[in-house]
Amino acid sequence: MPDHTNKQFDSDLEFVRSQFLIMGGIVEAMVHEAIEALTNSDTELVDKVRDREKEVNRHEVEIDDRINLLLARHQPTAIALRTLIAVSKMLTDMERSGDEAEKIATAARRMQEGSQHIPVVGLRHMSDQVGSMLRQMLDAFARLDPIQAAEVVRSDKSVDREWKATLRNLITYMMEDPRTISHAIDLIFIARSLERIGDHAKNMAERIIYLVRGTDVRHTGVKNAERQARGEDEEETAA
Amino acid sequence: MPDHTNKQFDSDLEFVRSQFLIMGGIVEAMVHEAIEALTNSDTELVDKVRDREKEVNRHEVEIDDRINLLLARHQPTAIALRTLIAVSKMLTDMERSGDEAEKIATAARRMQEGSQHIPVVGLRHMSDQVGSMLRQMLDAFARLDPIQAAEVVRSDKSVDREWKATLRNLITYMMEDPRTISHAIDLIFIARSLERIGDHAKNMAERIIYLVRGTDVRHTGVKNAERQARGEDEEETAA
Repeated sequence: MPDHTNKQFDSDLEFVRSQFLIMGGIVEAMVHEAIEALTNSDTELVDKVRDREKEVNRHEVEIDDRINLLLARHQPTAIALRTLIAVSKMLTDMERSGDEAEKIATAARRMQEGSQHIPVVGLRHMSDQVGSMLRQMLDAFARLDPIQAAEVVRSDKSVDREWKATLRNLITYMMEDPRTISHAIDLIFIARSLERIGDHAKNMAERIIYLVRGTDVRHTGVKNAERQARGEDEEETAA
Repeated sequence: MPDHTNKQFDSDLEFVRSQFLIMGGIVEAMVHEAIEALTNSDTELVDKVRDREKEVNRHEVEIDDRINLLLARHQPTAIALRTLIAVSKMLTDMERSGDEAEKIATAARRMQEGSQHIPVVGLRHMSDQVGSMLRQMLDAFARLDPIQAAEVVRSDKSVDREWKATLRNLITYMMEDPRTISHAIDLIFIARSLERIGDHAKNMAERIIYLVRGTDVRHTGVKNAERQARGEDEEETAA
């Protein structure tokens, strides 16, 4: 392959990577804004999140197109190929995280019309957690750091615990005062959306480990993900 | 490329396609079995669905490996490349559909312990709908039929309506008899899982249209998906 073609490929690959980071930054901001919109009943922020969701969709399609072109026109090296496939799959998780943030914003708008009030402290905490999972994951991707990616995989356990606690809490509210049922159902879906974003961040983090180490850590448990991230080879039973 | 290499590639590609169809068949069966387990309180069926979920995970990892090998060792033609990328992304949707079916089975087991009974007619109907979406989508994939894929995209609208009706119904139950709250929450999550499987089937169907027509129909609405499936080019506003 002539040298200028290689250079072109490298800069195209870099473009794909940086576009993905930009897309991820938007989604991370959406998570924060959606919860702000909920706690402050801020309609303008709801609109902003919905606009951003369309922007995220455009990024998804554009980056995917770019990846397909790169794959079709070049014979990428093994590592470049792995990167392209990984980003292509991470795009789906990122776009769906954006969808979940948009669902939260839409629920926030709907809930402004109601009158029942249930404190949303747990939700804010969950949203901080999954927001920082997204940030950590993007950082791990930018620096190709599998150890940090494994931390994101581990954090997902704590988000799951938080989700279950929030659910129990909201069910208690409903039982004590059935007038809160509709409102509480909305909050349950918001918590569920946050839990999903945590899942997506975990999925993306697992792909980063695969990308760097070449080992598929999906469906194998947290401990194995951490071991693979450190570059240790031996398998153990799933955590 | 020597002729025997081409033949090898073609048969490897065919293997990937047929493995995906097998994986899809398992997931389709899981959806059916999970709802059976729920309506008949059948614990053995719950275990069966959980075993199948692990089988689906293995398929996902194996097919993905095969795709990566094919991409690394050959310079696929444009259409083969599109197929490989499409299947690679569809795998994720298929595996997550299996996860949702497993969640339904797990909820079915939990609910056997409770005593409240709410009729699950709406759920059975939803499960039939998403089961047939999966079947239609797999069929469209096997025959590379974008028209049938577009029908799956359209069916998702009806699943969404069914989901909203089921949710309203269950909220009414809870309000009328707060003792049903826990039970109804479980049913809401089951309905939500079915709705997600419908979403996944739609996502896969959109990729089939892309695969055959080369046009990305995500985020563009049902009407555009149908137009592109028929091979008509002009764009219109999203449905």
